[in-house]
Amino acid sequence: PPRRFPMSASRSESGANGPALGVRPYDSWCGVAHGCTRKLGMKICGFLQKNNSLDEKSRIGGSFKERQSSKNVLSCENRDPRFGHTETDFSNLFARDLLPAKNGEEPTMQFLLEVVDILTNYIRKTFDRSTKVLDFHHPHQLLEGIEGFNLELSDQPESLEQILVDCRDTLKYGVRTGHPRFFNQLSSGLDIIGLAGEWLTSTANTNMFTYEIAPVFVLMEQLTLKKMREIVGWPGGEGDGIFSPGGAISNMYSVMVARYKYYPEVKTKGMSAAPRLILFTSEHSHYSIKKAGAALGFGVENVILLKCDERGRVIPADLEAKIIDAKQKGYVPLFVNATAGSTVYGAFDPINEIADLCEKYNMWLHVDGAWGGGLLMSRKHRHKLSGIERANSVTWNPHKMMGVPLQCSAILVREKGLLQGCNQMCAGYLFQPDKQYDVTYDTGDKAIQCGRHVDIFKFWLMWKAKGTSGFEQHINKCLELSEYLYTKIKNREGYEMVFQGEPQHTNVCFWYLPPSLRGMPDCPERRERLHKVAPKIKAMMMESGTTMVGYQPQGDKVNFFRMVVSNPAATKSDIDFLIEEIERLGQDL
Amino acid sequence: PPRRFPMSASRSESGANGPALGVRPYDSWCGVAHGCTRKLGMKICGFLQKNNSLDEKSRIGGSFKERQSSKNVLSCENRDPRFGHTETDFSNLFARDLLPAKNGEEPTMQFLLEVVDILTNYIRKTFDRSTKVLDFHHPHQLLEGIEGFNLELSDQPESLEQILVDCRDTLKYGVRTGHPRFFNQLSSGLDIIGLAGEWLTSTANTNMFTYEIAPVFVLMEQLTLKKMREIVGWPGGEGDGIFSPGGAISNMYSVMVARYKYYPEVKTKGMSAAPRLILFTSEHSHYSIKKAGAALGFGVENVILLKCDERGRVIPADLEAKIIDAKQKGYVPLFVNATAGSTVYGAFDPINEIADLCEKYNMWLHVDGAWGGGLLMSRKHRHKLSGIERANSVTWNPHKMMGVPLQCSAILVREKGLLQGCNQMCAGYLFQPDKQYDVTYDTGDKAIQCGRHVDIFKFWLMWKAKGTSGFEQHINKCLELSEYLYTKIKNREGYEMVFQGEPQHTNVCFWYLPPSLRGMPDCPERRERLHKVAPKIKAMMMESGTTMVGYQPQGDKVNFFRMVVSNPAATKSDIDFLIEEIERLGQDL
Repeated sequence: PPRRFPMSASRSESGANGPALGVRPYDSWCGVAHGCTRKLGMKICGFLQKNNSLDEKSRIGGSFKERQSSKNVLSCENRDPRFGHTETDFSNLFARDLLPAKNGEEPTMQFLLEVVDILTNYIRKTFDRSTKVLDFHHPHQLLEGIEGFNLELSDQPESLEQILVDCRDTLKYGVRTGHPRFFNQLSSGLDIIGLAGEWLTSTANTNMFTYEIAPVFVLMEQLTLKKMREIVGWPGGEGDGIFSPGGAISNMYSVMVARYKYYPEVKTKGMSAAPRLILFTSEHSHYSIKKAGAALGFGVENVILLKCDERGRVIPADLEAKIIDAKQKGYVPLFVNATAGSTVYGAFDPINEIADLCEKYNMWLHVDGAWGGGLLMSRKHRHKLSGIERANSVTWNPHKMMGVPLQCSAILVREKGLLQGCNQMCAGYLFQPDKQYDVTYDTGDKAIQCGRHVDIFKFWLMWKAKGTSGFEQHINKCLELSEYLYTKIKNREGYEMVFQGEPQHTNVCFWYLPPSLRGMPDCPERRERLHKVAPKIKAMMMESGTTMVGYQPQGDKVNFFRMVVSNPAATKSDIDFLIEEIERLGQDL
Repeated sequence: PPRRFPMSASRSESGANGPALGVRPYDSWCGVAHGCTRKLGMKICGFLQKNNSLDEKSRIGGSFKERQSSKNVLSCENRDPRFGHTETDFSNLFARDLLPAKNGEEPTMQFLLEVVDILTNYIRKTFDRSTKVLDFHHPHQLLEGIEGFNLELSDQPESLEQILVDCRDTLKYGVRTGHPRFFNQLSSGLDIIGLAGEWLTSTANTNMFTYEIAPVFVLMEQLTLKKMREIVGWPGGEGDGIFSPGGAISNMYSVMVARYKYYPEVKTKGMSAAPRLILFTSEHSHYSIKKAGAALGFGVENVILLKCDERGRVIPADLEAKIIDAKQKGYVPLFVNATAGSTVYGAFDPINEIADLCEKYNMWLHVDGAWGGGLLMSRKHRHKLSGIERANSVTWNPHKMMGVPLQCSAILVREKGLLQGCNQMCAGYLFQPDKQYDVTYDTGDKAIQCGRHVDIFKFWLMWKAKGTSGFEQHINKCLELSEYLYTKIKNREGYEMVFQGEPQHTNVCFWYLPPSLRGMPDCPERRERLHKVAPKIKAMMMESGTTMVGYQPQGDKVNFFRMVVSNPAATKSDIDFLIEEIERLGQDL
């Protein structure tokens, strides 16, 4: 396999800085500081060098060496010179030289600071609009080893120099999900506080199953879940909950808990102990309800899809008709999922009307607010989830609309004790009852997991840093941006909205019609050609690396763009850019 | 609630450095460098100050100010002085001032470097044996707000100064799972390369569901899974797999896939489409098989527990008897879990004998190598998993024995296509078939999750940095250490082994008998008193913060210590320390 032998001089080329766009001149600042020494030098000595016009490579090579030789002259403090007086040569250092190795402290610190230098350079560039969102390559290209970036694992260790090069290359060929023009997913943006929280979390490297080894995180989770339940509207924030590895698992929890509430014997005896149980969710809802139905032994044909109106909101009358139909067949309607913020349209199901039916037919009401739950933080927009306080359980992913780094998803349950009852197996080696502290804080047995990643800290820290009000401002700003987009394109030539009226969430769904399709009457040929427009534009976008936005078909509607805004870095100019880009790339299709 | 108003001077007290043990004089080095400027200064200027004997507070206050006033004189490079020429005052900065804010770059870098300073200080101290493993407090104490550490969330933002204090406090009141004397869990240690990998992963902040937004990580996962399958022994590394959020979920996958293989109609029609299906696992196995049985609709009474020998290994004859018994009742034996490295005893079930029975009765063989899978990396120890190549699926958690930071767990499946067939729901908005690249790399539909955290990078990076050989050395070293412990205590006065003979894994299970219990014949009173010894010693350990080791009862055996070694920082002296500590704390019980 191809191997690169990294040298200091080559580091400027293989940097994590990503390629610059042709549109603007390359911003030299962001391409400069590779050696950790460099940036840290600027920090301590008070100089940052921005927009330096010197040639990249020659300047770096030069100043790097100069600094090495002049280092002792540049001393800021006159103290013990035993350490750090030579520039670290990572090509002769290996993982085994780092802590806990004897004398491993100094190389460890040097290595970590070098990594941080790579990461902070990446962060700077991510927020810089002259940086590409991605540098696209096909799988076979990356597998073949571009510029020596070798993904294969080997028996012998690589030097730390190579490891640092691999870190740069990994970032270089990745996708900048925090870029102001990355709109491809419901999760986007790079929150600096959340990032700091993740760095701390991984340094603490512990596990949520017991208070014993995660005392602070367990309490943070408890307090944050309570706060979320208060915001949902459950009296006193009472109830239960847990952070899970994502919205799909949170939704799976809701189905499990509902089944346990109505048919607790299923835990012991299996599904054969219950009658045929029916789950309801809309045709626009997330596929995780079907996945849960398949996994938990209900079967996907017992997950009944409900009809939606033209805006993607469930039609309550269809729910009632299907409940009655199921009952007439002798089945037992168990569970309704109301989506608060559907994935494609951003639609909010009418929770109150659904809650009325759940009460009438004695069913569990779950609200999947994975995407829309964030709107609860906004006094202006939370009315869209009106009735959520009547839910038995709620999924709410702070890693989507609230900009928390991945993964951060909560399942909230109104009735206490169900999560524990449903999942506990009382493993003696983990949940000893004879510990010296109050073991009700050992929450691990509530989970379907044993070990559980610490997802709470970054979220807790962001909440501290932004306050509830900061999240509110973020939500409001994102919705204003999508309103701006909607207003801009709804009457613009070449655009057609997928549904009429202002979107409920930040989702704006639209077709772009190249001039060649405008004026053509609706017919199979037009549909067929229109179906190919979004994929073609998207492919060109990715290849030029300028921006990313999602597309998909929905029901009988051919491929359309789904724009979403959750990135705090996005501005009106980025919305304008997206539209210009679609038109630039699509005009000749 | 109590609030602390942080000032620079107070930072040395609330640092993330943790309390020092009384045993040795406080190591002043580790308590010194709070301001990022300080350490970075040392780095760039070539001075580290270790074991400085000056009084902490006065020196910090002094030199901090001195540096501020003399900063411009200390310039290392004579460049553009627009940035960074004043010490950052975080008390007037807020999250909203960071990127993507206008002019947010400089405060962002300053803030992140300050965070890194906190983290690197924490790392230094973690590897320093004079640091406590933990500073124990009861839940109510932390909830009340120790020294102003306020866990409550508020409406208004806190300053970045407060956020930094919160970061220090979070680490201060946590547990140092990387400490050389932390033996409490199967996961321990703090691998520096893995940590760097996690920092990069959270900076990249992307999602595994598509190649589109995680091209490099998706390929790394694919190559690493293939390598793991090769090591398992499947020809050419063929097969399938995925990284999941932990061993319990990986085990759940194995049950789902087994069910799909034999009864694919369950996906559509639910468990009622299948006969009564039986899962087998040993009484020493991990409780996640029962959890999976409950969650997936089998029912825990259809999870049959198998008898073990005195070493905790399943007795194959008991399996066959129970298979025959189930068949006679008209049930269908579906699945056997063989544990490779049980949680408490570290026992390895005889895989080949179980595989023979699985072939004979046409059942799925799963090997739960969450804990023991790591031994596959050692030529010396991999024979303990002999027969694993005959398994249909394998759980293997690199975050346990291989020291990868949490979370990192793989489920490997021998037959291709089952994972996809079992879980796919073909969501059009995510897995568009008309993308420009080879969409077989979009692996998201294999998962029960939708979004999936990037768990691969840290592992891939560690593998690069250590090589297969580095993992082998680590495994061998841990097993040597546990052999050392076993040899040391097996004939030592006051110790009794829970099972005889050398442990198969690093688990060493033993009772410590205080002098008051020695010589007392076995009787209910002795058992009752012995049952309380381990919890009492553990509680004292935690309160003195010196070390941590697990205990639990097992079957009819009263509480005993379970020592495990997976921490690369542990040495024989730490094993000695543990024994001394148990004797010191337990002698008067």
